[in-house]
Amino acid sequence: MIAMLDYAAVAVFALTGALVASRAQLDIIGFFFVACLTAVGGGTIRDLLLDRDPVFWLADPTHLAIACAAAFLVFFTAHLLESRYTVLLWLDAAALAIAVAAGVSVAGAMDQSVPIILVMGVATGTLGGLMRDVVCNEVPLVLKQGELYVTAALAGAGAALAIPYLTADPLAPIMACILTTFALRAGSLAFGWRLPVYRPRPPRS
Amino acid sequence: MIAMLDYAAVAVFALTGALVASRAQLDIIGFFFVACLTAVGGGTIRDLLLDRDPVFWLADPTHLAIACAAAFLVFFTAHLLESRYTVLLWLDAAALAIAVAAGVSVAGAMDQSVPIILVMGVATGTLGGLMRDVVCNEVPLVLKQGELYVTAALAGAGAALAIPYLTADPLAPIMACILTTFALRAGSLAFGWRLPVYRPRPPRS
Amino acid sequence: MIAMLDYAAVAVFALTGALVASRAQLDIIGFFFVACLTAVGGGTIRDLLLDRDPVFWLADPTHLAIACAAAFLVFFTAHLLESRYTVLLWLDAAALAIAVAAGVSVAGAMDQSVPIILVMGVATGTLGGLMRDVVCNEVPLVLKQGELYVTAALAGAGAALAIPYLTADPLAPIMACILTTFALRAGSLAFGWRLPVYRPRPPRS
Repeated sequence: MIAMLDYAAVAVFALTGALVASRAQLDIIGFFFVACLTAVGGGTIRDLLLDRDPVFWLADPTHLAIACAAAFLVFFTAHLLESRYTVLLWLDAAALAIAVAAGVSVAGAMDQSVPIILVMGVATGTLGGLMRDVVCNEVPLVLKQGELYVTAALAGAGAALAIPYLTADPLAPIMACILTTFALRAGSLAFGWRLPVYRPRPPRS
Repeated sequence: MIAMLDYAAVAVFALTGALVASRAQLDIIGFFFVACLTAVGGGTIRDLLLDRDPVFWLADPTHLAIACAAAFLVFFTAHLLESRYTVLLWLDAAALAIAVAAGVSVAGAMDQSVPIILVMGVATGTLGGLMRDVVCNEVPLVLKQGELYVTAALAGAGAALAIPYLTADPLAPIMACILTTFALRAGSLAFGWRLPVYRPRPPRS
Repeated sequence: MIAMLDYAAVAVFALTGALVASRAQLDIIGFFFVACLTAVGGGTIRDLLLDRDPVFWLADPTHLAIACAAAFLVFFTAHLLESRYTVLLWLDAAALAIAVAAGVSVAGAMDQSVPIILVMGVATGTLGGLMRDVVCNEVPLVLKQGELYVTAALAGAGAALAIPYLTADPLAPIMACILTTFALRAGSLAFGWRLPVYRPRPPRS
């Protein structure tokens, strides 16, 4: 199950990486590079921090093949999309949701404490996309003012931790995590859901 | 003692991270994210490089709680500051000084060689703030032309290594490191202390 | 032999880091910082991913001395160059070629699988320069539209893997890797060799 989540997160994040590569007008190998970086970035940080040996995609290079296949697909079809950026945002929301669940599952299976599980969920979900945006000079989605992003990831990770008190179904925490993360992010994209942001008061006169 | 240094560096770096988050007008969860990234970034790289297992904040998530508390404080009080950027610069100087000492102490306690201790001091001191600035699209303080920054960190780490030849007091190297780093950085901020920078000569005619 | 490759890659990458530091008009310690980051960045990621303990420059700080010596040299001589950016591009091409060979050699000596060897070659070759460019706010060479960069690295790593089927000379794979990578990158710089890049079709009317 953890393996399936990692595969799915890799595939969807790779699609977002390839879309960013298309915005930068790279060649096919550049697509592979950005897709792989985005796809395995978050999970790699997770595995290095948790001292998992080996890192997930070294143990099973199928992940790299999936990421390159996704990049190949985008290279030849992205021109068919009406709005690449909109597709990018929604795929990124899906990838975030799945990757948070992957991070929570891995940390949970290692019997980490509650704060560490939360952090691993958020880190796995957000850091691959953050690397993609930093490397490709996009404004990191993490920092988009007035959007739920880290909040969605944190709430999803929290849902995964809360659900076992309600049901013993082993799949329920993963589903709750994916649905909560995606719902909050989607609500933010579609309906403008947001938390109050910091606003400096005018200077005292 | 090493634990105390890590706590203090985490707290002060988290304040700087939250101040940068306020400049980016993020929400409270965004403040937590940037504060935690800044607070544990440098020490995490240090621990991964030195193969310390586990990384310090995984062993003791109190660090994350401290970082989030600092972010919370800034979210609700930053508007009281006259000049957030000035406060940011001075807090960053304090965080740099403490974190260099933390890096030197950890590497010293592992009986690393002199160049490695110096590098770990500089890396622990500078990399958390560097991540903060890269992620939040600020000009990295490391690169501010004509300011002592890496120089202050390196001198502080050097002071920590030199002091044991003068006194056997176990606290003296740490104090010397903090004071040296902070004094050089403060002198650069307040009085413009600097090293000569590279200047291209005019082209030969 | 692997040690020699790492030394050479460190030296040449450090020169490129120092040239970028000269473009940012840093002081001599800033030159050391950027040179060391660039010089050991790619190999450090490789060693962390492969769980090599210790990381190569912790085992032998000579690497840091070489990087600082290179930075020192550039600090005092860069003004003699006609075009620092052109020199930077060509040194970076040489560093890329050598570092890919270093990455391939290390992964090969650990009996990693073919895809992992390819990835370690590309990662070792490209990530140090990528860190340099991200930290110093340069457009990453990896992303320069219409140039062979990751492609050259990947082809070089592939050549290293193919050569043992042709000759048993233990040096041949390394030489083939260096020559293939450098030739492709040089061809791209000098003659504009390139792969087709992604181009969005005009919107359908």
